[in-house]
Amino acid sequence: MKALQDKIVNEGKVISEGVLKVDSFLNHQIDPQLMKKIGQEFAELYKNEGITKILTIESSGIAPAVMAGLLLEVPVVFARKSKSVTLIDNLYTTEVYSFTKKVTSTLTVSKDYLTEDDVVLVIDDFLANGEAAKGLIHLIEQAGATISGIGIVIEKGFQQGGQVLRDKGYRVDSLAIVSSLENKEIQFS
Amino acid sequence: MKALQDKIVNEGKVISEGVLKVDSFLNHQIDPQLMKKIGQEFAELYKNEGITKILTIESSGIAPAVMAGLLLEVPVVFARKSKSVTLIDNLYTTEVYSFTKKVTSTLTVSKDYLTEDDVVLVIDDFLANGEAAKGLIHLIEQAGATISGIGIVIEKGFQQGGQVLRDKGYRVDSLAIVSSLENKEIQFS
Repeated sequence: MKALQDKIVNEGKVISEGVLKVDSFLNHQIDPQLMKKIGQEFAELYKNEGITKILTIESSGIAPAVMAGLLLEVPVVFARKSKSVTLIDNLYTTEVYSFTKKVTSTLTVSKDYLTEDDVVLVIDDFLANGEAAKGLIHLIEQAGATISGIGIVIEKGFQQGGQVLRDKGYRVDSLAIVSSLENKEIQFS
Repeated sequence: MKALQDKIVNEGKVISEGVLKVDSFLNHQIDPQLMKKIGQEFAELYKNEGITKILTIESSGIAPAVMAGLLLEVPVVFARKSKSVTLIDNLYTTEVYSFTKKVTSTLTVSKDYLTEDDVVLVIDDFLANGEAAKGLIHLIEQAGATISGIGIVIEKGFQQGGQVLRDKGYRVDSLAIVSSLENKEIQFS
């Protein structure tokens, strides 16, 4: 996706060979116009797949997921990273380790909002080691729902998450795949 | 806002006289169509105010804020509830106590995304005791930016946050004001 690649090149900050910071339009400040275009891309890719629900994770997945949900006319559910006091039981849960933040979080989704009748499109901001995506897949499996595919805004192609998911047979659609951050240069594949 | 009130009546769950749960369309599952209408309301209310930025808090403020930002054609910044390892310094910070979750969090916003030139619309999902709104105001004050107003999806009119903010001279626009949850009935003012 050209507009996204341009934005990454113009505003992304390479912190190290593994870390790309896109706080100016996705992870802290959000560019709503770009999110709309991203939502359009996902909606176009999945418009004939009978999607009934989009599943994402708080917080950075919400904006692209809601824009896709608007066009696909389906609800968006965001998995929570910690348990809320008003939502104690009736939950699907899974543990996810973040290599970026070096913490394990518990992801939860209420059983009310994910059922065996759902055909789910997973949307997330980044795909690196694939831990978050695997956690979301585990939640969907607990519900007995169908996983249609995984839509990613930025995949780090030099980390193994995308390959692992594709090898397992999941459809993965990444709108930008960064192949290298070496020498502080952002390369796409 | 009629569509919002209807949704609250049809899907809101009164947990106690103080707690209204709207997990089916705002706080866990998100209704993108309703979020678009909410964004349109906020955009209409603030279209002539010279807004340059919307400030919200992760996670439930993001969807309505992004929809408003799309129409007002301004970026959305979400204050983070805990510090990220890739964003250590260069921050405005403030402490916020959540009466619902009974925890104090540190809200942070990067100095890169909020400056003295900004005219800010604050958007949040709920207004109850006003702690979150006061935290966001404190962040905006640290930046030396201008606060144009505070847009709230659901105000609990029986708690004092809205009154306190209005008494201080802030413009507060709540799309639905719940006046009572007594006897498990949702009343609007």
